[in-house]
Amino acid sequence: MLRTARQCLEVAAGPRLEKRIGMTFIDYSDITPREIAPGVSARFVHTPGMTIARVEIQRDARVPSHSHPHEQVTTVLSGELELTVGADTRVLRAGMVAFIPGAVVHSAHARSACEVLDVFHPVREDYR
Amino acid sequence: MLRTARQCLEVAAGPRLEKRIGMTFIDYSDITPREIAPGVSARFVHTPGMTIARVEIQRDARVPSHSHPHEQVTTVLSGELELTVGADTRVLRAGMVAFIPGAVVHSAHARSACEVLDVFHPVREDYR
Repeated sequence: MLRTARQCLEVAAGPRLEKRIGMTFIDYSDITPREIAPGVSARFVHTPGMTIARVEIQRDARVPSHSHPHEQVTTVLSGELELTVGADTRVLRAGMVAFIPGAVVHSAHARSACEVLDVFHPVREDYR
Repeated sequence: MLRTARQCLEVAAGPRLEKRIGMTFIDYSDITPREIAPGVSARFVHTPGMTIARVEIQRDARVPSHSHPHEQVTTVLSGELELTVGADTRVLRAGMVAFIPGAVVHSAHARSACEVLDVFHPVREDYR
């Protein structure tokens, strides 16, 4: 049986997310932000296989060194973000992207206020 | 054995992508765009589990109705994109996002020049 997109989202997201985002189309501003580190605020969207986080980082805020089994792709939308992945450090600006394989230690330091889009696979159950 | 981020990227991406993007950090402007429909130009980054596409769409360009088994999340970065997912149509602006479950038919029409970030899981082998 072919399901509609809305039915699929309900099945995929479960009642909790369905209640929060309501439908196929979401405005990030309708998602309650979570402070994942001091000065680092994230709004999460979860699908069956991925988590997408729109992250606002205040100038000079830091994401301490950490790792997780999920692979991550970080795209900088605005600002300058110093990102360390393993032994490599780079300042990323709008239009630049970093690939962080699962289990690789990484950290970040905002050289200016930044807006970033992080995508993860598999889904970040720890941020549901 | 713990692998460095660069080694992981080489393993993950294979020699072809490794040659193209070279390292953990990528500038989208260094990726050759592909025209996936008239007026729709995409730059792809592939990881083991995801494909990320930065897509530029000219005003009035259309992505015809299609579907794929991959789940997709579309974030509008700039412009106005009319997106139809199953039976639902919405005009998305910067900061809005759509979830397209696998196998659900969808199409798009750019109301203005747009920039969009699409993420897919699993990886789009058809765009490698």
